[in-house]
Amino acid sequence: MKKILNNIDDVIVEELQGMQKAYNNLIKVNYDPIFVTRANNTDKVALVSGGGSGHEPLHAGFVGYGMLDAACPGAIFTSPTPDQMEEATKQLNNKKGVVFLVKNYTGDVMNFQMAEDLCKAEGIDVRSIVIDDDVSVKDSLYTTGRRGVGATVFFEKICGASAERGDSIDKVLEYANFCKENARSMGMALTSCTVPAVGKPTFDISDEEIEMGIGIHGEPGRERIKIITSAKIAETMMEAICSDIPYKNGDDVICMVNGMGATPLMELYTLYNDVAKIAEKKGLKIVRNLVGNYVTSIDMAGASISLMKVNDDIIKLWDYPVHTAALRWGM
Amino acid sequence: MKKILNNIDDVIVEELQGMQKAYNNLIKVNYDPIFVTRANNTDKVALVSGGGSGHEPLHAGFVGYGMLDAACPGAIFTSPTPDQMEEATKQLNNKKGVVFLVKNYTGDVMNFQMAEDLCKAEGIDVRSIVIDDDVSVKDSLYTTGRRGVGATVFFEKICGASAERGDSIDKVLEYANFCKENARSMGMALTSCTVPAVGKPTFDISDEEIEMGIGIHGEPGRERIKIITSAKIAETMMEAICSDIPYKNGDDVICMVNGMGATPLMELYTLYNDVAKIAEKKGLKIVRNLVGNYVTSIDMAGASISLMKVNDDIIKLWDYPVHTAALRWGM
Repeated sequence: MKKILNNIDDVIVEELQGMQKAYNNLIKVNYDPIFVTRANNTDKVALVSGGGSGHEPLHAGFVGYGMLDAACPGAIFTSPTPDQMEEATKQLNNKKGVVFLVKNYTGDVMNFQMAEDLCKAEGIDVRSIVIDDDVSVKDSLYTTGRRGVGATVFFEKICGASAERGDSIDKVLEYANFCKENARSMGMALTSCTVPAVGKPTFDISDEEIEMGIGIHGEPGRERIKIITSAKIAETMMEAICSDIPYKNGDDVICMVNGMGATPLMELYTLYNDVAKIAEKKGLKIVRNLVGNYVTSIDMAGASISLMKVNDDIIKLWDYPVHTAALRWGM
Repeated sequence: MKKILNNIDDVIVEELQGMQKAYNNLIKVNYDPIFVTRANNTDKVALVSGGGSGHEPLHAGFVGYGMLDAACPGAIFTSPTPDQMEEATKQLNNKKGVVFLVKNYTGDVMNFQMAEDLCKAEGIDVRSIVIDDDVSVKDSLYTTGRRGVGATVFFEKICGASAERGDSIDKVLEYANFCKENARSMGMALTSCTVPAVGKPTFDISDEEIEMGIGIHGEPGRERIKIITSAKIAETMMEAICSDIPYKNGDDVICMVNGMGATPLMELYTLYNDVAKIAEKKGLKIVRNLVGNYVTSIDMAGASISLMKVNDDIIKLWDYPVHTAALRWGM
């Protein structure tokens, strides 16, 4: 294993120290327990997310104006513990209520649930939504039901904008449910990721094979196949996504082509080109898009596609100003 | 070789088609000859850059408000030809003059020079500046003199802002010279890149070695050494950079920690943390920073550090609004 790091045990703390230094005007890192909040407190519904590290910029890279109020990073590919979410929630201005955005992994769901119970016991109005947008597999290594993957960015952007403009907690949850109903994703990998503490690739894959439907922790997908073209990758994933929700001719969608961490932009643009061609054929109008590394799997080479059917109300929230480490516009 | 692509011969065209679809409101791609301009024409000094592809988002990702007017991508790691720069320049509103930002590689310098001559013969006021910020080696595989690498982003941002706010061509060039005098870079690689048409890594490197002072085309650097910690990598590169220009105690600097294409953010943040610690020890104040993939080498794992000494005037230009595919703030 070759990586730019110092002590393997300090990987999370050191990357957060780096983030703190790079985005000092945006975020504040708390180290015991570990969580990241905005540099300045706000007076609105608060949004808290989190999960195992290794998916950077998710979630800490989305803390800031128009998105999250706090992110709770666990160890690599390991759920954060309830005290992290509890402490973060208590430190926020939480009078208007707090929404937990939770990716559907058994550990995350359990630990966020415990944090929710602890906060409620202290009189804080906490509601949770579980993100499960991955159409690849029904159950998998780390979860019962579908995994939460790329669409998490949609949840955090849309709910973040809703909370930022002053919507009530009920309204923010309504948007979270909209995202849950209308967003779907699928990913694929060319290579495995390597968890620093393990020191070797999570899985073996030959020089001629790719894994379709991979999870963001290197957990197995639908099938392992011989390498195919970008056009075929796009077709396979778009078929799986579009047949899951009956996206129909004339629908407006937001489309994200996301890199898994080690995929060059050249390949992401090529894939986006093929995805957009298929969308056009299906009569789907891509009204907004993201192409880049947003929900990664450490140093995995590969990509995922996320689609969300949208309306004018949602587009307004998408376009709402945002200022975080990883997403910024309108300010 | 495993990559997300279709035909190897069409890699550049297909990635540009993807960019066109993703950033349709920002850019316009011309395919014969190949160049990328802004979607809308402007009335100001025009900035043109370009170079071999494989360094995405450089340069096409920096076309837009506050940065470039046109980018001319060559084949992978291959200089664009004079007709690309000539045609792009002729299509721009070039009455206030055109500045060519040229990275110091023999092919680029020669071809931009020819384009400059051709444009001048048609009465267009073109001036060029050659970027040579890499302190690693004096001469190398593709060039005489120092290579142009990471600081290219500084040139494009600072000169772009100057041109955008309406400065004269002389003033824009003055800022280009400021960048040339005050910016230095160095890079390192953990792995080689793989050029699609070649199909195998450009160089072999063992699982325990890294290459210090690597170029952005996989060309050799200063030395190959056993893997060292992020802190030691930062120390080695900061020493080389800071001893080259006598950055002195109390100086304000902009710092970029740049990924080579396959380096996860986790590692870039860790490296930034170490770089910032060294800067602090040296009394350098990092007043602005960038951490991410800006000047890449296809799918190489590794990172580079760029520093530029700045003053209030330069910071104002840095903070000037920018809206491109890869850099955006203030709008």
